[in-house]
Amino acid sequence: MAYELYYWDGLQGRGEFVRLALEDAGAEYIDVARESKNSGYGMDAMMKVLNSKTEPHIPFAPPFLRDGELMVPHVANILLYLGPKLNLAPKDEGLRYVAHGLQLTIADFVAEVHDTHHPLATDLYYEDQKDAAKIRTQNFLDKRVPKFMKYFERVLAQNPHGDTQMIGDTATYVDLSIFQIVDGLHYAFPRAMKEFGAQYPRVAAIHDAVLQRPNIAAYVDSERRIPFNESGIFRHYPELDQDA
Amino acid sequence: MAYELYYWDGLQGRGEFVRLALEDAGAEYIDVARESKNSGYGMDAMMKVLNSKTEPHIPFAPPFLRDGELMVPHVANILLYLGPKLNLAPKDEGLRYVAHGLQLTIADFVAEVHDTHHPLATDLYYEDQKDAAKIRTQNFLDKRVPKFMKYFERVLAQNPHGDTQMIGDTATYVDLSIFQIVDGLHYAFPRAMKEFGAQYPRVAAIHDAVLQRPNIAAYVDSERRIPFNESGIFRHYPELDQDA
Repeated sequence: MAYELYYWDGLQGRGEFVRLALEDAGAEYIDVARESKNSGYGMDAMMKVLNSKTEPHIPFAPPFLRDGELMVPHVANILLYLGPKLNLAPKDEGLRYVAHGLQLTIADFVAEVHDTHHPLATDLYYEDQKDAAKIRTQNFLDKRVPKFMKYFERVLAQNPHGDTQMIGDTATYVDLSIFQIVDGLHYAFPRAMKEFGAQYPRVAAIHDAVLQRPNIAAYVDSERRIPFNESGIFRHYPELDQDA
Repeated sequence: MAYELYYWDGLQGRGEFVRLALEDAGAEYIDVARESKNSGYGMDAMMKVLNSKTEPHIPFAPPFLRDGELMVPHVANILLYLGPKLNLAPKDEGLRYVAHGLQLTIADFVAEVHDTHHPLATDLYYEDQKDAAKIRTQNFLDKRVPKFMKYFERVLAQNPHGDTQMIGDTATYVDLSIFQIVDGLHYAFPRAMKEFGAQYPRVAAIHDAVLQRPNIAAYVDSERRIPFNESGIFRHYPELDQDA
């Protein structure tokens, strides 16, 4: 049975980290909110789950994955669950906790990316918190991006199996997520990221290697890949980027 | 062998969610950074891991848990790992993903609590972002606390096994974490939380029930429980609380 991925239509957002894993593995999945209402899916189907008064295990927010009876919420949790099934997790049981830890660090980074344009409140418009966004983004670019990226560089440098994957000796869902955050940073902050490849060569190489995986290359070129846009996590607001 | 918990000394912070599980289970553990240097532990031991150039699996930040050779970072990941060992997780494999999802929602909430006093930058002083903190906190109290707490109320109300635990039919680490966030909210925002018990009766009842668990009651009264303070996640800045 196909996996059902529930996430907002019209943006990559957090759902994209799950899509990349499903696409890379060539797994059968239904992107529920993007399907037509006639097929029994669509946005209504997602809202029905979110607002259900009877579901025993309601998610707080999308994305969530339904696999038969099981409902798994949160990106990192979904990847923890799917990783072994999609052959995108370390074989070793212990290493799976390490991979999950890396994914949770990526989740924290993604939350910080979101807060660059929404530092004061998620439910206020960006336009109403622009000044705060400018301060937060500058700190993000000056301090937080280097802190996270230097960490990921160290993780790669100290991987006993070599620096061509984030953990163990084969590609995992963590590498796919690294691709996504690097791709997103380049979209959102093209000026600030100009030297990214020179500054963080190992991380940049992961991005490029993932993009050469046949199923990812095909996906990125397909209509299934929603382009980055200003409804997502990574938004290109030129006024927030580093000065030219 | 005793578990080694690595977390900053002097604050409850994120480490407290792990301590509560270890304490409730009566597990043997070493709170590494709080031990003396002479014993081979202490802050230096923690920094040695964080700064290691040779560890194969370095954490991004505390807390992390060492169990023999395995290093598990991130609160929710640590609880995922410890839960079954401490008899604080659902027996059912599938439900463990649901419990983990709840814990990740708690982790998101905790990050939002942190950002009430640090909306612009983690490495700026609170004093340098007080105005932004005021706006963010007001939105947090008006919108975010209700959103999360109503969700937790629904989770309890829709638990097929009854509303006296967050998941399944026995207490899990998720209940312990609910205790901690309710306790923290009362500490940080006593005025805004005055009606908490009436507004969110099921969540409040979880807090009270956890506090009656013998090992938690003993722990909370012990010197091992660091009092809430203004170095932690939950900080009592009266000017951020709801007006009297």
